[in-house]
Amino acid sequence: MTDTKPLFFGLYEQACVGNGSGAVSLWTHPDDRRLGALDLRYWIDLARRAEEAEFDLFFFGDVLGMYDTLGGGPATALEWGVELPAHDPLLHIPALAAVTERIAFGATVSTTYEHPFAHARRFSTLDHLTAGRIAWNIVTSYLPGAAANFGLDVLAHDSRYDRADEFLEVVYDLWERSWDDDAYVGSRELRRFADPSKVLRVDHEGAHFRVAGPHVSPPSPQRTPYLIQAGWSPRGREFAARHAELIFVGDSDPQAIREGLSGIRARAAELGRDPEQIRAVVGMNPVLAPTRIEVQQKLDAYQSHYNADAQLAAYAGWSGIDFAAYADDEPIVKQSTNHTQTKETRSDAPPLTAGDVRGRFASVTAFADDRFIGTPDEVAANIEEFVEESGVDGFLLHQYLSPGSLDDFSTLLAPRLRERGLFGGRPSEGTLRSRLRTDGADRLGADHPAGARRR
Amino acid sequence: MTDTKPLFFGLYEQACVGNGSGAVSLWTHPDDRRLGALDLRYWIDLARRAEEAEFDLFFFGDVLGMYDTLGGGPATALEWGVELPAHDPLLHIPALAAVTERIAFGATVSTTYEHPFAHARRFSTLDHLTAGRIAWNIVTSYLPGAAANFGLDVLAHDSRYDRADEFLEVVYDLWERSWDDDAYVGSRELRRFADPSKVLRVDHEGAHFRVAGPHVSPPSPQRTPYLIQAGWSPRGREFAARHAELIFVGDSDPQAIREGLSGIRARAAELGRDPEQIRAVVGMNPVLAPTRIEVQQKLDAYQSHYNADAQLAAYAGWSGIDFAAYADDEPIVKQSTNHTQTKETRSDAPPLTAGDVRGRFASVTAFADDRFIGTPDEVAANIEEFVEESGVDGFLLHQYLSPGSLDDFSTLLAPRLRERGLFGGRPSEGTLRSRLRTDGADRLGADHPAGARRR
Repeated sequence: MTDTKPLFFGLYEQACVGNGSGAVSLWTHPDDRRLGALDLRYWIDLARRAEEAEFDLFFFGDVLGMYDTLGGGPATALEWGVELPAHDPLLHIPALAAVTERIAFGATVSTTYEHPFAHARRFSTLDHLTAGRIAWNIVTSYLPGAAANFGLDVLAHDSRYDRADEFLEVVYDLWERSWDDDAYVGSRELRRFADPSKVLRVDHEGAHFRVAGPHVSPPSPQRTPYLIQAGWSPRGREFAARHAELIFVGDSDPQAIREGLSGIRARAAELGRDPEQIRAVVGMNPVLAPTRIEVQQKLDAYQSHYNADAQLAAYAGWSGIDFAAYADDEPIVKQSTNHTQTKETRSDAPPLTAGDVRGRFASVTAFADDRFIGTPDEVAANIEEFVEESGVDGFLLHQYLSPGSLDDFSTLLAPRLRERGLFGGRPSEGTLRSRLRTDGADRLGADHPAGARRR
Repeated sequence: MTDTKPLFFGLYEQACVGNGSGAVSLWTHPDDRRLGALDLRYWIDLARRAEEAEFDLFFFGDVLGMYDTLGGGPATALEWGVELPAHDPLLHIPALAAVTERIAFGATVSTTYEHPFAHARRFSTLDHLTAGRIAWNIVTSYLPGAAANFGLDVLAHDSRYDRADEFLEVVYDLWERSWDDDAYVGSRELRRFADPSKVLRVDHEGAHFRVAGPHVSPPSPQRTPYLIQAGWSPRGREFAARHAELIFVGDSDPQAIREGLSGIRARAAELGRDPEQIRAVVGMNPVLAPTRIEVQQKLDAYQSHYNADAQLAAYAGWSGIDFAAYADDEPIVKQSTNHTQTKETRSDAPPLTAGDVRGRFASVTAFADDRFIGTPDEVAANIEEFVEESGVDGFLLHQYLSPGSLDDFSTLLAPRLRERGLFGGRPSEGTLRSRLRTDGADRLGADHPAGARRR
């Protein structure tokens, strides 16, 4: 694979107070500032910190409903602010782009609930306004509560992906095919905005969408936003092989990751794509302190503000399983197919009982990987080993405390990673895509189904 | 009516290069900066200027397709950038909110192409992030090209309004009813985000939408964004009487405006609303210079960068009439029902021939009102008279040149208006609604169909 040094680092965020990717209830910790997430100042401060910390990406997850699986209602989610509010991530990015210069932004948008014309327009707007600092995390959504908010029964997993495939056909045509490279003139002297002979309608007519076009935006720096994909199911991997440029890996075992990525890249090559252009990151929840004793003190403090029910409410939503309906010794019948972050999604995981799950959720480190908990030297060594074994290109940082976890990363861990050549000095100019591709291109090539649509 | 001094001033903008509300082709003038509209810096500069100029509102129009009525295709629109690009206005506002402190923002969003759940989430996000500096201009859309981009045949005028009525029912329930005033707790000490017993599902089931809820955002400063409405047709006026807080008047005759507003306010009172809370603004395209000779020089310079076809392409889209299909002496058969800005929409206007229309469009002042062209003293006097006759509360400024028209307003006209007590010193703190209501309330009262939904 391509050289993975220095590593790519993103901050994983969500426009909410109770951030399920860290530990939901830790907004109650006195050092945490997530209660300010309703206020733009919280986000501006955090984005500036991430840029100062030389992060490459500020990433937003998203949900379109409440976590109402646990106990059959949203009571726990509301008590603890589990991924609430669910504010629109896209509406945070322009503000953060206005107050930063280098860091790129990623936003999760579902192909299940948006219309491809409006979606293409939104990302073209963002790609222009951010000068190519934008990525789209393609998801198909899983929460039944979200489906009910849009008047849909939740689509079956595979048919969500079918709709996603057609959605992508449409947006690729709008982004790549509708305007030729030289269709935009933009010249006062020639008194010409664009050359009409080089702008095409798309006239898409499919099972899910009819879209006439032309696209209402000239080619933006990247045209298609940089494409992120997080599905790790068989169908998700096939989708990644076809479309993804950055894979948000849904596993924590280095060898399984290496095999999974290898499979995705082999399939991508079969499909005619350049597998070298597929990058991968994995989530990490570090807990860092200068000494082991201080690490333990931090964990104890986190634990004292941790609520297992809040975390279980998030996990119930991700997995679609209402653990409250199971006795402790009852095995969980339904296999999780949605969430990408937990060990349970690995196909070789043994069947769990509800008691096993509740037991695991007693600890604030239920979602953490021990590799990333320790002194800076320990964690830096573990990261190097993990990267060598797994072949990932970088990490998305989940914060236990915001902005404390980011600050700890920056002050404690980054210097150690820098010594190992794992951090710092990555390209920070130009489009996000150009920073991640081996050829430095701003736009997708003809080997990708988006680039292939260009005339 | 309520005291109209000092007047309310908004800047009318659209996230495009060829701004149809001024004169489309004037982006080709060497002093104009609209060609920078694809770049965030243009917008940041303009918003800062508008705030420094003590404007109350930065307003974005919007379209969701190309102007393809004239000649049956988008060629003229593409040549001249007629309301192109059609970038998403909502994605500009967070950036502008981040770099300003006082000015409020308005955005046009169609009820025809959005889903009410996603829409409610977007405006709740914006109302939180801007601390209540946000307004929604409710439109039902008219461009056939937009309908084709969403796989819809363009809905008949009245059925667009029916859909809009149901759309508003849903968003009002999400904004006002789903969360009680004290449902959000947000307390670290109590370890409580919200009180689940005070958060309701909406369970809307109607002809157009099924939306379960609850809303995914706690009550924002204004809850419902400040509501603007621009329709001036009979159905539009009925809609305004029910919903609008600020009417963007579709007429230029002061007496007709007074009568129209009086009719809307009387109807609002019949419906149980407080008519004092309904405000009105009208568009103005001023051309200002210290002397008459310099005014004429400006007009000559504008004229030399004016293209009648470009302006006619915009007008054809607004009116739905393909003037290219008519000979000069042919009367225009179809009555315009869409556009709110031109004299032709007045019901007492005589039938026009295509030649009449083309004749009018020969001049860069085709859309201007002579009252607002002149020396600062002349225009200030005309504004005072216009306000006294029409009863409007303020104006939306259309710029011939950006930012030159705004700067002219600020340096030449504002001082004269200030002397007359017509400009400056308006409230600039708190929510937009509190600045415009006689009672200073942040939220709608029970007399309004949105406020009436609150428990």
